[in-house]
Amino acid sequence: MLRTHTCGELNISHLGQTVTLCGWVQKSRDLGGTTFIDVRDRYGLTQLIFNTDTDAQLREKSRELGREFVIQVTGNVIERTSKNTKIPTGEIEIVVTAIEVLNAAKLPPFLIEDETDGGEELRAKYRYLDLRRNPIRSNLVLRHKMAQEVRKYLDKLDFIEVETPVLIKSTPEGARDFVVPSRMNAGEFYALPQSPQTFKQLLMVSGFDRYFQIVKCFRDEDLRADRQPEFTQIDCELSFVEQEDILNIFEGLTRHLFKTVKGIDLGEVPRMLYADAARLYGSDKPDLRFGMEFVELNDIVKGKGFGIFDNAELVVGINAKGCANYTRKQVDELTEWLKRPQIGVTGMIYCRYNEDGTLKSSVDKFYNEDELANWAAAFNAEKGDLMLILAGGTDKVRKQLNELRLEMGNRLGLRDKDTFAPLWVIDFPLLEWDEESSRYHAMHHPFTSPKPEDIALLDTEPGAVRANAYDLVINGTEIGGGSIRIHDRALQALMFKHLGFSPEEAQKQFGFLMDAFEYGAPPHGGIAFGFDRLASIFAGLDSIRDVIAFPKNNSGRDVMIDSPSTIAEAQMAELKIKTTV
Amino acid sequence: MLRTHTCGELNISHLGQTVTLCGWVQKSRDLGGTTFIDVRDRYGLTQLIFNTDTDAQLREKSRELGREFVIQVTGNVIERTSKNTKIPTGEIEIVVTAIEVLNAAKLPPFLIEDETDGGEELRAKYRYLDLRRNPIRSNLVLRHKMAQEVRKYLDKLDFIEVETPVLIKSTPEGARDFVVPSRMNAGEFYALPQSPQTFKQLLMVSGFDRYFQIVKCFRDEDLRADRQPEFTQIDCELSFVEQEDILNIFEGLTRHLFKTVKGIDLGEVPRMLYADAARLYGSDKPDLRFGMEFVELNDIVKGKGFGIFDNAELVVGINAKGCANYTRKQVDELTEWLKRPQIGVTGMIYCRYNEDGTLKSSVDKFYNEDELANWAAAFNAEKGDLMLILAGGTDKVRKQLNELRLEMGNRLGLRDKDTFAPLWVIDFPLLEWDEESSRYHAMHHPFTSPKPEDIALLDTEPGAVRANAYDLVINGTEIGGGSIRIHDRALQALMFKHLGFSPEEAQKQFGFLMDAFEYGAPPHGGIAFGFDRLASIFAGLDSIRDVIAFPKNNSGRDVMIDSPSTIAEAQMAELKIKTTV
Repeated sequence: MLRTHTCGELNISHLGQTVTLCGWVQKSRDLGGTTFIDVRDRYGLTQLIFNTDTDAQLREKSRELGREFVIQVTGNVIERTSKNTKIPTGEIEIVVTAIEVLNAAKLPPFLIEDETDGGEELRAKYRYLDLRRNPIRSNLVLRHKMAQEVRKYLDKLDFIEVETPVLIKSTPEGARDFVVPSRMNAGEFYALPQSPQTFKQLLMVSGFDRYFQIVKCFRDEDLRADRQPEFTQIDCELSFVEQEDILNIFEGLTRHLFKTVKGIDLGEVPRMLYADAARLYGSDKPDLRFGMEFVELNDIVKGKGFGIFDNAELVVGINAKGCANYTRKQVDELTEWLKRPQIGVTGMIYCRYNEDGTLKSSVDKFYNEDELANWAAAFNAEKGDLMLILAGGTDKVRKQLNELRLEMGNRLGLRDKDTFAPLWVIDFPLLEWDEESSRYHAMHHPFTSPKPEDIALLDTEPGAVRANAYDLVINGTEIGGGSIRIHDRALQALMFKHLGFSPEEAQKQFGFLMDAFEYGAPPHGGIAFGFDRLASIFAGLDSIRDVIAFPKNNSGRDVMIDSPSTIAEAQMAELKIKTTV
Repeated sequence: MLRTHTCGELNISHLGQTVTLCGWVQKSRDLGGTTFIDVRDRYGLTQLIFNTDTDAQLREKSRELGREFVIQVTGNVIERTSKNTKIPTGEIEIVVTAIEVLNAAKLPPFLIEDETDGGEELRAKYRYLDLRRNPIRSNLVLRHKMAQEVRKYLDKLDFIEVETPVLIKSTPEGARDFVVPSRMNAGEFYALPQSPQTFKQLLMVSGFDRYFQIVKCFRDEDLRADRQPEFTQIDCELSFVEQEDILNIFEGLTRHLFKTVKGIDLGEVPRMLYADAARLYGSDKPDLRFGMEFVELNDIVKGKGFGIFDNAELVVGINAKGCANYTRKQVDELTEWLKRPQIGVTGMIYCRYNEDGTLKSSVDKFYNEDELANWAAAFNAEKGDLMLILAGGTDKVRKQLNELRLEMGNRLGLRDKDTFAPLWVIDFPLLEWDEESSRYHAMHHPFTSPKPEDIALLDTEPGAVRANAYDLVINGTEIGGGSIRIHDRALQALMFKHLGFSPEEAQKQFGFLMDAFEYGAPPHGGIAFGFDRLASIFAGLDSIRDVIAFPKNNSGRDVMIDSPSTIAEAQMAELKIKTTV
């Protein structure tokens, strides 16, 4: 080894030892006849000293070391006179007796410090330098620890990690596939998997009983801060289980991760019906770090001559605790925020419960103080609270109020990154109507089983059929989802029929799976966690980018390596493809 | 859970308990008024009994269960009268009180037994059934254990697993890339990585210090039994190390795997110079389960008037111990085997050291018995041995004799699958001449560093430059290889120049890496193991196919899912590509 110790391990117990360290020059400062240099590696920082009186030549050499030079130094461990209690090596320093520059460094384009002066694009281009910064590197160390703990937990429960193929078959269902032209089978394409769904089900048919994999998946979709064209799933499947078993095992995994990686006791994960989540939070992934449940007002506000309420399918609001002192300007600003096209609210009604006990609404013309007192009672409001009310079509208004609730949560500081509120949302609908294609789509995927008691509704009221499907939500983010699968050929065929597949199409695309169901498929179910999102929540980040070593930007580009890029004509000729740009 | 126990865990300690099992009907037999059924899951087999006297109806039901039916049974654990000591559950059986068929099964197209009657193609099509067979499933369980142990070992040594991207950039060096058309960047392509080489080097530049990843890699090459278009590497990189450190750490990993997964003490791994491996075994991956080293004969055979030897660059042979009794027919057959185009030998000379002490060669016209005695001395031959000799150009004849040596190892039973002979081959050449392109190629890859003392030879005798490169070989198979890398921009540029890149090409393809070297790149090196091959050696298999859950055939097809396949015109239009088939 080029070193005897790392830059993070020396302490008072090493006094008097001769050591050799390797690392990067973090900073350098002169003080009279002495130069102090902090040398850094992944493990920490150690202070080096060079003194003119001891070795003038060496000291001169030390002054030539720029930031980020890679050096190897040998010296003796001594006790510091002014100790730094903030770092583990803060009680010692190294009197250097020999130094070698292993590699010089140009001045980095931005500061390699916890707080940097580099913009996002610059840091993306020099990602390898950005990765030197502690906050980024520590995210990846955290991610590593999480992956290790996932594997330990699942291995103990007899799960086997099985690698499924990356070069698979394109299917029309779901998101857009990335495809790979085949040279050996010219004119044909592989697809990259959006998930190993069918393969893990086949492994259940094979009797693997308990499978998992931490695996890359791919979706060619337009990108957002929390989407990447390639992302990582913790993918799991089990045989001979019911929903309850899956919830218990993976609630256990989640608790294990919080405990071992973050030292947090997560406690029991509550469960909520999808229908209740929609009614109380207007979302299938409610942020339960705070309450502020929806209050439906149809019964008490209708029939008083206020057309907006009278004509609305649903009148629903939230109680913003302690916000009665919002100025008119603040309320208007909030209304404007709601009117943005992304949310599309046309107007908000509010009612102040003033500190003096009076009630004052924006619709006093239609409602007297006694009626407003009924509102306050419905909202469980107290003096000082502000009731915010929207009206409209049920689905739309719930979505809008969800946005408002989250925004008020932010404004009231109720969404602390170090608080974790997990939740199982269960009993999802099996199908959802898609306006664009004028047909039902699988809400989860086509392999999800309907609740047996709802199967009869498939023909009469497809939208009302509930699925054996569940999501794990933390702090308003869906971090995992799964279902009990169909394991019966006839039911799977029925499902494809309801999704608009002809029997021939279904056989062509998924014949291998339906055939497999005829050779002794066990009841099975599973779950997949978005590992990037889970890691970002553990790291307290909004975006998944900084828990990924080499992410792509919003155009799907890696600006560091300049990819994607054109390829040679000869390469295309060999693949028998042409671009038509 | 649908079961209280697995089919592998019940034993005498469970007597009297009421249990519920789930699994597949392995086999069924009637004996008088009783039906015996073996129910199988991943964990084992349990015997069920159904008796007409106890419950006639249930017994009748049991007779309707076909092979591979999925069942759930409840019953009482009793002691068997005739015990089966071969399986852990062999002391007990279950008197069934209730049975439910969870799924029926068609008759499988081949026997789900350790020895099956299914041909390779049929089993590939129904891979999910083939995976039910113990020998295949146990390979994948073994593979899982190996991966877990790799991670444990490396985690303990402060290695961090970091995921590198799958959608990267196509480069002209090395094997053919699989490419992925980009929709968002029309006309451009991603490539799938042949290895995460440049990314792991960038992680070293980032100060990650110790990286690893068990990762899928891709090569669009024509396929053989031990090649798949997608394969898995254990990929590792370390900073501030020398070759010696890497050999020690990964010899440690190899020993750890053998110990924990197979219970074998591997012992110290010997080292051999590439030059010696070529000279003594005609291979850079000698199988050291047996000796049979090459003996070079130029000094003693030349100048006796035998043109083939006189004109040969190298005369070299092996001593086949105890084969003097090979008949003329056997020797001729061996010679024919060597004459196949894959090997291309034109003729073989042999010399018998008969049991009576006489020596008899196929070239007695040119060599008298005294001279043959010199041969025998050179070969260290004893009575009963057979010396086999080839002559020709050095490189070619060594390759040919390597084939002969391995074949003789097979014929003499010297290549036992349960014996493991590991070896480090070191000091590989940096470059190798490629006839086709009339230029030097990197033997390892363009990032491998030359030995400092050999750099001067780059201009004068490129083929003689040795690299800081090493391979780990087990039983004649290369299972890992790596090198100390270049970490200096100027040296990397020099390397690209010698590989025929113009400075512009080098900058275009690998500019990001060379730029990174200017910002403080540490000395670093690494290794990558072929995980599929390693697993196949652990499993005692010749092919890597059966340590892969869903392999592709020699045409790169997955015949189970029928991939690759054509895609819709609309999909191609969106990607702005066309096929030209």
